[in-house]
Amino acid sequence: MNLAQFNREIAEIRADRVRGASELARRCLAVLMEAARALPETNSAGLREDLLALAAELAGIRPSMAPVQNLLRRWREGLAIEADLELAVARQMAVERAETLIAASRRAVADCAAQAADLLGPGRTVMTHSLSSTVLEVCRLLKDRGLRMIVTESRPLEEGRHLAERLSTWNVPTLYITDAQMGVFVAQADAVLVGADSVLVDGAVVNKAGTCLLALAARERNVPFYVCCESFKRREAGEPPPELEEMASAELSVPAWPGVTVRNVYFDITPARLVSAWIDETGVRRSSAGH
Amino acid sequence: MNLAQFNREIAEIRADRVRGASELARRCLAVLMEAARALPETNSAGLREDLLALAAELAGIRPSMAPVQNLLRRWREGLAIEADLELAVARQMAVERAETLIAASRRAVADCAAQAADLLGPGRTVMTHSLSSTVLEVCRLLKDRGLRMIVTESRPLEEGRHLAERLSTWNVPTLYITDAQMGVFVAQADAVLVGADSVLVDGAVVNKAGTCLLALAARERNVPFYVCCESFKRREAGEPPPELEEMASAELSVPAWPGVTVRNVYFDITPARLVSAWIDETGVRRSSAGH
Repeated sequence: MNLAQFNREIAEIRADRVRGASELARRCLAVLMEAARALPETNSAGLREDLLALAAELAGIRPSMAPVQNLLRRWREGLAIEADLELAVARQMAVERAETLIAASRRAVADCAAQAADLLGPGRTVMTHSLSSTVLEVCRLLKDRGLRMIVTESRPLEEGRHLAERLSTWNVPTLYITDAQMGVFVAQADAVLVGADSVLVDGAVVNKAGTCLLALAARERNVPFYVCCESFKRREAGEPPPELEEMASAELSVPAWPGVTVRNVYFDITPARLVSAWIDETGVRRSSAGH
Repeated sequence: MNLAQFNREIAEIRADRVRGASELARRCLAVLMEAARALPETNSAGLREDLLALAAELAGIRPSMAPVQNLLRRWREGLAIEADLELAVARQMAVERAETLIAASRRAVADCAAQAADLLGPGRTVMTHSLSSTVLEVCRLLKDRGLRMIVTESRPLEEGRHLAERLSTWNVPTLYITDAQMGVFVAQADAVLVGADSVLVDGAVVNKAGTCLLALAARERNVPFYVCCESFKRREAGEPPPELEEMASAELSVPAWPGVTVRNVYFDITPARLVSAWIDETGVRRSSAGH
């Protein structure tokens, strides 16, 4: 992989609207693996410097996504490349470090989904917003256990379509609605289950825009609101408040009316007090508010 | 106008997704005017019978829209056609009754918008959802008084586009967002202002799906939530709960996935306790909850 290829990879990760935060974090680690194998360096010190610079660049491109930050930081922290290390060994160490973290991330997501499936149990109607790979895995685990789903389209790019299509192939009875109908249908759900891009220190949840509306509607109708994501998605204490990424206004497909600014903020923040329980790979933490 | 033309008119009113409830109510009255002029009857009793049957049919086609019910009921109640009345006079009475109510409806909407513009005052940022002709009139009244607007697209048919386009021609600085971003932007508004299709006896508001989400988000951020509609939109005590009209699922433009039911409910109900004030042609009624 040459520099042009790395730059293309980085551009793709930056522009990616389909993959979730965990998957993009693993893709960043895969870029580092490839770099560790292929960067044209002649000694370990140079390799280490190149890799750390690349890791810093990768960390900067998806600021709303905590796992990108967390997994890259863990990778950097575990990168024990001494200057006198043989280059081939240094390359191998960097690769293995990334492989270990990719495996840990996958395992955490799978365990997290299993915890959520246990909490929900069989025969439930579950509502979600946007497309979370963790929620998708929960659906897979429950698809033969009487699961029914309510899925929002999730404008502007309508990730809900992918979810509805998958649920259809699994024969999970599904209602598909516009985002605006969340308030009409939430009362039909036994629970709301969403993924997250990040969870803040106080438990607030950064997720696709519209999530906080669903949380408000769920609270209004006394439907439990569960957030399901692996602990790599937790932000560390002391980190600055998350920047909410904004994407191209062209995604809304409207004309350029003079004086009208088209906004396309991808994420919103759901306050912790609207969350009934946080589910991660270690278990379920219920809100102290007791709802 | 012959029977085929009446039936076409009725089909158009039934299918109309662009005009609001007040305008459709006036269109129903215009159909009755036309019928009063043109129905091939030979005596007043027959004319009266035909017109009452047509009014009943018109009342049934937009059940969510209180002004359609209210204006048609007022028209029926005021239709003092005795059996021995000369036919030409009877026709003229029915026409004039409709004309009077159409004028009253227009005046009420205009007065209502003036009340709302007074309440809001100059230099405000106002957020709305969907397209209300009354809210549009408020924007026109405030367009040269420092108004700024935040407009949602309002899926599936995106009535927000019409509003944004009009605001652009008026040089009103406007933010245009997806429905899902309501929670992100509501805090930037000084007030939310929406129209209504109906207001229930307890003050709950039937309006385009998504309105109750905006009301919840406004409450969450302590932004006042105003409902602006003429008193013809109030439902009477004793009426059954409103049926929330559902339109063709094709409007969501998704494939027919087996097992997936696409829902397209057009209206939701915002509970009265989320409303800060109701504005009609007579003035402003603030919530007793005092927000």
